[in-house]
Amino acid sequence: MAKQVVFDSEKIAQLDKKYRISLVNSISGFKSANLIGSIDKKDHTNLAIFNSVMHIGANPPLLGFILRPITVPRHTYQNIKETGVYTINYINSEMIDRAHQTGAKYEKEESEFVECGFEERYYKDFEAPFVAESNIKLGMQFKEELPIESNGTRLIVGEIKHIIVEDEVFLRESGAIDLIASNATAIAGLDTYFAPHFIKKLPIPRR
Amino acid sequence: MAKQVVFDSEKIAQLDKKYRISLVNSISGFKSANLIGSIDKKDHTNLAIFNSVMHIGANPPLLGFILRPITVPRHTYQNIKETGVYTINYINSEMIDRAHQTGAKYEKEESEFVECGFEERYYKDFEAPFVAESNIKLGMQFKEELPIESNGTRLIVGEIKHIIVEDEVFLRESGAIDLIASNATAIAGLDTYFAPHFIKKLPIPRR
Repeated sequence: MAKQVVFDSEKIAQLDKKYRISLVNSISGFKSANLIGSIDKKDHTNLAIFNSVMHIGANPPLLGFILRPITVPRHTYQNIKETGVYTINYINSEMIDRAHQTGAKYEKEESEFVECGFEERYYKDFEAPFVAESNIKLGMQFKEELPIESNGTRLIVGEIKHIIVEDEVFLRESGAIDLIASNATAIAGLDTYFAPHFIKKLPIPRR
Repeated sequence: MAKQVVFDSEKIAQLDKKYRISLVNSISGFKSANLIGSIDKKDHTNLAIFNSVMHIGANPPLLGFILRPITVPRHTYQNIKETGVYTINYINSEMIDRAHQTGAKYEKEESEFVECGFEERYYKDFEAPFVAESNIKLGMQFKEELPIESNGTRLIVGEIKHIIVEDEVFLRESGAIDLIASNATAIAGLDTYFAPHFIKKLPIPRR
């Protein structure tokens, strides 16, 4: 017989801090695992792991991510404000350990590309560095930031300017990215990585 | 030899509409698959599939989701504004077909709980309906909405008031939800469902 566990507001507030962070960070479920690349005006590059990249709209093509001042280096934000551009790079499964390591504290003068073993790649005149190793790379232009009053985080919204698919087999005929073929990973909470397996594709729901 | 495929802004804008939607909807990677339950003041219940539930913060415990006027029924938004509460329910793998079907057009007087074969479950005096079949259920209180100027969508932010874990085995000792044990699914784009397999859990990155 399954034993139900219930947490209400009061119980959540009283939880041990580490326990609450584990619970609330994992409860939103599976997320995409990405590296955000950026550069400042002095050509210092930065690379940081994010699990909050989300779809905002298809036309114009917009993606968002949540900037959390505590768990995420502010360098990404500073650089985006300086240059107006950044890159979003998929974390392929063989990149997990190095990508996770970008979450450690590095000084602004140090580049996580160097420290964590990734190669910078530039595309045409786009200023921000892409991750050479990543199978799918996106060049993003900053559009707007929305401060979330409830806790002081921000939603950063950007427009997709470049989509680089490293092998045509990662792209389906429909235009959808084949996330399995491109070896994309999912993340839960801050520390647990998954390789999703295909269950099914369904048609547009109709009555 | 891998053949690279590149889309720049101009090429993205010129893509066939269906192709662009497939590409841009899938490019943000894996998302959690959820059903959002709500109710209006006349006790009409609503249930809608969402793939944009995101972590906003752990203290207070906040989650967000993106409301897209075109692809998502507005009933969810109307009900949240009327009652101030809603539920977020995990889509277990055996629920995928029925959950997907909630994306079809139903009238406000019809309930997707009935039409798609889910059982409403109420918890204490919390007004919004939970999905009985769902292994993890969250009772949410509306906090704020942020209009995204770039395309007219909104970020809806809510506070977690209740966490209902249907079996204690879905909860790890650390407080993290065991997404594999709880049979949670991931979604890519609007139509492709995945069952993630565990790769690894990593320690806090340090130098």
